[in-house]
Amino acid sequence: MESTKRVYTFGDGKAEGKADMKNLLGGKGANLAEMNLIGVPVPAGFTITTEVCTEYNLYGKDEVVKLLKSEVESAMLKTEEIMKAKFGSKNESFPLLVSVRSGARASMPGMMNTILNLGMNDDTVKIVAKTSGNEKFAYDSYRRFIQMYGDVVMNVVAAEGEHCPFEQVLDAVKHKNNYKSDTDFTVEDLKGIVDSFKAVVRKNAGTDFPTDPWEQLWGAICAVFDSWNTERAILYRKMEKIPNEWGTAVNVQAMVYGNMGDNSGTGVCFSRDAATGENIFNGEYLINAQGEDVVSGVRTPQEITVEGSKKWAERAGISESERAANFPSLEEAMPKVYADLNAVQQKLENHYKDMQDMEFTIQDGKLWMLQTRNGKRTGAAMVRMAVEMVEEGLINDKTAIMRQEPNKLDELLHPIFEKSAKANAKVLSKGLPASPGAATGKVVFTANDAEEWAARGEKVILVRRETSPEDLKGMYAAEGILTERGGMTSHAAVVARGMGKCCISSAAGISVSHTSLTIKGKVFNQGDYISLDGSTGTVYEGQVATITPSLDGDFGKLMEIAERNSKMYVRTNADTPHDAKLAREFGAKGIGLCRTEHMFFEGDRIWAIREMILANDLEGRKKALAKLLPIQREDFYGILEAMDGFGVTIRLLDPPLHEFTPNDEPSQKEMAQKLGLSLEAIKTKVESLHEVNPMLGHRGCRLGNTYPEITEMQARAIIEAACELKKNGFNPKPEIMIPLIGTVEEYKMQEIIIRETAETVFIEKGIKVDYLVGTMIEIPRAALTADRIAQHAEFFSFGTNDLTQMTFGYSRDDVGKFLPIYIEKGLLKNDPFQVLDQEGVGQLVEMGTSKGRAANPKLKVGICGEHGGEPSSVEFCGKVGMDYVSCSPFRVPIARLAAAQANLR
Amino acid sequence: MESTKRVYTFGDGKAEGKADMKNLLGGKGANLAEMNLIGVPVPAGFTITTEVCTEYNLYGKDEVVKLLKSEVESAMLKTEEIMKAKFGSKNESFPLLVSVRSGARASMPGMMNTILNLGMNDDTVKIVAKTSGNEKFAYDSYRRFIQMYGDVVMNVVAAEGEHCPFEQVLDAVKHKNNYKSDTDFTVEDLKGIVDSFKAVVRKNAGTDFPTDPWEQLWGAICAVFDSWNTERAILYRKMEKIPNEWGTAVNVQAMVYGNMGDNSGTGVCFSRDAATGENIFNGEYLINAQGEDVVSGVRTPQEITVEGSKKWAERAGISESERAANFPSLEEAMPKVYADLNAVQQKLENHYKDMQDMEFTIQDGKLWMLQTRNGKRTGAAMVRMAVEMVEEGLINDKTAIMRQEPNKLDELLHPIFEKSAKANAKVLSKGLPASPGAATGKVVFTANDAEEWAARGEKVILVRRETSPEDLKGMYAAEGILTERGGMTSHAAVVARGMGKCCISSAAGISVSHTSLTIKGKVFNQGDYISLDGSTGTVYEGQVATITPSLDGDFGKLMEIAERNSKMYVRTNADTPHDAKLAREFGAKGIGLCRTEHMFFEGDRIWAIREMILANDLEGRKKALAKLLPIQREDFYGILEAMDGFGVTIRLLDPPLHEFTPNDEPSQKEMAQKLGLSLEAIKTKVESLHEVNPMLGHRGCRLGNTYPEITEMQARAIIEAACELKKNGFNPKPEIMIPLIGTVEEYKMQEIIIRETAETVFIEKGIKVDYLVGTMIEIPRAALTADRIAQHAEFFSFGTNDLTQMTFGYSRDDVGKFLPIYIEKGLLKNDPFQVLDQEGVGQLVEMGTSKGRAANPKLKVGICGEHGGEPSSVEFCGKVGMDYVSCSPFRVPIARLAAAQANLR
Repeated sequence: MESTKRVYTFGDGKAEGKADMKNLLGGKGANLAEMNLIGVPVPAGFTITTEVCTEYNLYGKDEVVKLLKSEVESAMLKTEEIMKAKFGSKNESFPLLVSVRSGARASMPGMMNTILNLGMNDDTVKIVAKTSGNEKFAYDSYRRFIQMYGDVVMNVVAAEGEHCPFEQVLDAVKHKNNYKSDTDFTVEDLKGIVDSFKAVVRKNAGTDFPTDPWEQLWGAICAVFDSWNTERAILYRKMEKIPNEWGTAVNVQAMVYGNMGDNSGTGVCFSRDAATGENIFNGEYLINAQGEDVVSGVRTPQEITVEGSKKWAERAGISESERAANFPSLEEAMPKVYADLNAVQQKLENHYKDMQDMEFTIQDGKLWMLQTRNGKRTGAAMVRMAVEMVEEGLINDKTAIMRQEPNKLDELLHPIFEKSAKANAKVLSKGLPASPGAATGKVVFTANDAEEWAARGEKVILVRRETSPEDLKGMYAAEGILTERGGMTSHAAVVARGMGKCCISSAAGISVSHTSLTIKGKVFNQGDYISLDGSTGTVYEGQVATITPSLDGDFGKLMEIAERNSKMYVRTNADTPHDAKLAREFGAKGIGLCRTEHMFFEGDRIWAIREMILANDLEGRKKALAKLLPIQREDFYGILEAMDGFGVTIRLLDPPLHEFTPNDEPSQKEMAQKLGLSLEAIKTKVESLHEVNPMLGHRGCRLGNTYPEITEMQARAIIEAACELKKNGFNPKPEIMIPLIGTVEEYKMQEIIIRETAETVFIEKGIKVDYLVGTMIEIPRAALTADRIAQHAEFFSFGTNDLTQMTFGYSRDDVGKFLPIYIEKGLLKNDPFQVLDQEGVGQLVEMGTSKGRAANPKLKVGICGEHGGEPSSVEFCGKVGMDYVSCSPFRVPIARLAAAQANLR
Repeated sequence: MESTKRVYTFGDGKAEGKADMKNLLGGKGANLAEMNLIGVPVPAGFTITTEVCTEYNLYGKDEVVKLLKSEVESAMLKTEEIMKAKFGSKNESFPLLVSVRSGARASMPGMMNTILNLGMNDDTVKIVAKTSGNEKFAYDSYRRFIQMYGDVVMNVVAAEGEHCPFEQVLDAVKHKNNYKSDTDFTVEDLKGIVDSFKAVVRKNAGTDFPTDPWEQLWGAICAVFDSWNTERAILYRKMEKIPNEWGTAVNVQAMVYGNMGDNSGTGVCFSRDAATGENIFNGEYLINAQGEDVVSGVRTPQEITVEGSKKWAERAGISESERAANFPSLEEAMPKVYADLNAVQQKLENHYKDMQDMEFTIQDGKLWMLQTRNGKRTGAAMVRMAVEMVEEGLINDKTAIMRQEPNKLDELLHPIFEKSAKANAKVLSKGLPASPGAATGKVVFTANDAEEWAARGEKVILVRRETSPEDLKGMYAAEGILTERGGMTSHAAVVARGMGKCCISSAAGISVSHTSLTIKGKVFNQGDYISLDGSTGTVYEGQVATITPSLDGDFGKLMEIAERNSKMYVRTNADTPHDAKLAREFGAKGIGLCRTEHMFFEGDRIWAIREMILANDLEGRKKALAKLLPIQREDFYGILEAMDGFGVTIRLLDPPLHEFTPNDEPSQKEMAQKLGLSLEAIKTKVESLHEVNPMLGHRGCRLGNTYPEITEMQARAIIEAACELKKNGFNPKPEIMIPLIGTVEEYKMQEIIIRETAETVFIEKGIKVDYLVGTMIEIPRAALTADRIAQHAEFFSFGTNDLTQMTFGYSRDDVGKFLPIYIEKGLLKNDPFQVLDQEGVGQLVEMGTSKGRAANPKLKVGICGEHGGEPSSVEFCGKVGMDYVSCSPFRVPIARLAAAQANLR
């Protein structure tokens, strides 16, 4: 026991530990050592190893203090030497004050609060006041130390139903003096607070606040070890499967201060531009200030570099002479320190191979780095930095790809609000971020109005209780869509995402009538402005300026990197040639889901389908279907042409027939007139089509198997279109998808119709085309019996929207009644309609794929549910071994990136 | 090749083959041999082995005839000797005529039609006519032979769009003479028909009908071998996985005739009474008759035994002297033959160890057995025979149990129609056999009318479009229920089965209004009689007499045999003490599903639950729930008392709240008045509760997790009731079941509420009771993640109704639109709501059980879906290793039997 080294020092470019000693020194301790070793000036200090924590648990406090004593004392001596200050100094020079922090092998957030300013007491506070020339700073630091130490080490806690006793003291002083914030305290106030705090400690802990810095230090060290065994920490370790034996290290580090005169200062800086990604060093600093001063806005921070400073002055309308006099850059004000800082930032970026966000303090002319971390960045900066760093040779493809947050690409693909305009805008409500992007426009309440107003050049926001297929054109004309009801996979949400149009659904506290929108009591009429941020779900009042980002070269380069690192490819869900072309520009390689029913709503088509529904016999239905045939053929021609050379998965009619019939009497009357039938007949039919649970009703292949003539017509339209395209020199690749298969028998019956129809068309046209027949796997039973289905199907496409509905037993139309509560209560981590539930639904996806491939090794497998554009779900699809994912056009780039990440992970 | 034996003879108590030579001789051939060996007189003949079939396929016709020739000729010689007749006889004695049949190892129905009377030609027909003294019989036999041989051997087929040419000939003769049936033909007609038939053969086959019996025989033998390779046979073997190499045998057997004079005859007999099961030999015969004469009703058949004959005469009102003179029994008329027959029937029953249904022919004073098979029987006979045969030592427990058809027990548990009344009743329609039993009564259209009419002693049939919980009392009062809509698991069906009440749902062509019932155009008004057979789904016009069977001692004995041969036990689904007691009498050992929501509809309870739904805050809901607490406690007290000592699984509130609110305005007005709210408020609430897919909506534990106070109230009611019972000396065993669990987190949150409530009650009451907490597995995701759930749950109960809905994606309320078509088209073999889908849903049941048990070996597992009373599903549950199945009270005996079968199989 005696021979073990228990304390590792660091400082002044030297360290006894290093980065790969995490197990012994904890994450933080190893990092502090490493930073010293690469020559970054960090305040000196030492780390007590994790093994001591184990000893502490075995032998207890007294024994461990005895074991540590000489090593800690000599480490403190070293620290004092480097920092040129004395711990518990009673002479005239600034004393060495230290921070004490825990530091386990794995990060355990909130395990123990940091204790700062340790070493303060009634003597040292006076020296600090005197040497810093800032008495307020000295006493403020002292009272903060007492509170922190009291809380963490001495267990001063609030009595039940009461505030924290320290806060009570502060509140009383503020109340008495009518202060608004802590910064209003005078020196005298702070001195009084220090006394009161000491009294609080005496009363609550039953003992005086320790004045001896060494006593303070041992107390803090033991408190860190004690914190390893709090209930919260034990529970956290249990959840995260961290062994109790690992223990925590203790880091003791010198405090440095930037507010000790004009030769001191503090700042933050970035190794590249976090907004644009440009490779330029930048940041802000203040002379004679603490870190919080830079952030609080009380003083105007100054730029780090001359170049940055000049640009800033230009923007602020400040003359060069005034700038140089009053707001000099660090480069100008402290050239030596700047040179050090510039060297350090380069070193850190090279070391961590990413843009660094750093905090530094200059104490008495000497630069100290307090923190460095990978910097947050905008979507555009994320892309540019990654691409440039690959070009610079700083990182490889894999790192560049893995560093992307796929969802941030949205910022590059959709309009966003101007930063300042958004900051000033008034938030009205929050809803579901149903489709990303920003939009501003005048409120309209019907699809027709949206079309008309847009036609005359107005920007409109379509506001509806919920949308239906009849609203399609209005949605297209609008800038954005706001609905009272519906979830992330409601009609409005799905269609809006497909259009790349911003949409918010189920906004809180809003109600929509035919003529007005009420948000939390405030009424908006037709023509009033509102603005939507579909990426966050926020609804704003009035107009908020937007900017439309353009995809630049970096984006293309990133996509190339993704491409060469992917196994899966990306298709799109598209129902029109327009969407197909758009998605192709975004890099989609085919269509994973073309819904044929959307086509039925346009123009006169709805009347043909209604005629079919109303027909009493096969002949009547065939007559009506014959009218649809040429229209569908034309649709398919356009889409197959737009995706020429790539596979196009066309799903046969899926929704229940009642979706095509009107429920209101005026429309029913119109229908009766148009079809030459009695209103009564229409009503009877509509009633007979009614279903209690339409989601689980007469739809999908159940239609095709009860009305085979529908399948026949659709198959004919697809194959005829493909034959014509081939004659015209194109290379069409139709893949006919049978929806809602639950049994292999259903599949086989549909397949026969399709293949027989195709053979007939080939003979008629005198030409053959290649085509596939496959099915959507969206019913749990289909996944369970995938081996049988795959003996016949050529491809599987997982319809994870419906699969999620049935596996969870959640109707996506009704889930709004409990899903938000479930997420709030932690019963669900995510909305399973947004993020694929890998634990449950994922089992069926995995099972369906592996059983399918076992029975048919050539089986092509993809996903066409909304999850196909969600990064974590895409990763799962990659893990399962899918050939492709398919998503709405505007998610294609995100999916491409996620596909590469899935492969590289 | 030469050394192989290819032909095996049988006859006169000797045989070259035996029962265990099925592979070589086929099933039929081996049986014919065996019957000879045990001394049963069957007409002599021989079997050509299945190996010859393989040779036939390899070497062809000519070669095989050559190989067979000498063996077949010597076998025919042996047959001639035994039968004392000559094949192709040209002398004066009756010739040997033979039948030729195929006979594979496994039964292949319809592979080849039998050829009878082979050996007939223009010469032999005359001898037959002369020796039998029956010219019409001779020529009729001849013309039948030509047609059969022409069809089967000579491939005379109908031209497209035409009738079979033989039938054309017969139709022409009948048309010309105005005959109604084939029996009207005169001898001259038949002679003409024979000529015409020969012409047909000549024209269609291009060759003359063969007159040489040996040529006929070789043709027939080869036709049997050819039939092995017809498309139909190949397809059948592929489907049934029968190897092509097995081949078929050919059986050539002497014909015998019962119409050759007063020393001949024919009859059918049974070794026990097929109606009652009594161990008494019985049957009917006719002198000088063919088999069809006994069945056709042209002559009155006579009884076999004296005892039977006397009873018959008594019933028919015929004096003993007339009986003895005109209708003597076989025992009296042919004592020697009777003695032989009696010995044979005993031998056969002893040999096959089951009641035999036998056909025999007496030719010229000699008894020949033509067929024996296990006899069909009524449910009562099935039970009695099995029990008695066990007692006689004829069969063991296992055989007795395996021989039961569980569904036939229904006949013993429910009223059935009188056989003759049913035969004469007019069928109006066919629907789903939703709940078994027979009922007759006057039509009423509302639950109130049902109650009122029944109260004044009328028997009524409640006719509704569909039923809802509000109809409960009316359903209880009615004899039977008929609904226009709904499937096997509709409300009406489930409740009716629970009540043991006959019910037919979704009857074809019926429509129900408030005042009338229309069945295929015929209108029935209130008070008109109809009758229902819920076991078959048949609706009859008018009154049909019913009989109510009583459970006798044999039934109890059978249940005892089942009991001692079962691993699984049987619980019941019951919501009332009455049902619980009833089921206990049927042998239920506990309750597998007690639905608490049914209790909410009775009396004033509905108002408390409605008050809760309308409450705007927690306090309001708690106030309303407080009113329900004592009522629920009382319910639970009664049920736990009725099932004292057995586990009672109580499911917490399951249905969506909108099931408790009215949709029509008058009821909403009543509700508004009663709750002191505006109609508008009620309407708004009802609208807000509306769900697009209520099946997948806000229900089950989703209610309990959003309104924990409901769970708390119910848990309190259960535990309080149990505590009181224990104080009163009972042994209550409540098992609290959380419905609709999809994630372990949902389970845990509910479990905490239940356990905390229980602990509180224990302290309040100063007594503790044992209780379990578990969950229903009815959501696919629950089955998939059963390992996680079972770490917490103490029991699983598979809710296979909902599990089937979600695994198939079928709404049981809407499935009527396509399920009947699916079953008709063969897309589904069974209604998966009746018969558990082992291939798909079964995977989830198996997975849920094995994953659950792996995580928690003490996990109790059962099933409470409707499938728990369906025999094949019960067997599956046994295979999966469940502890129990639970079903409605009237299915309990069936489930007990099926459980034993599951264990023994």
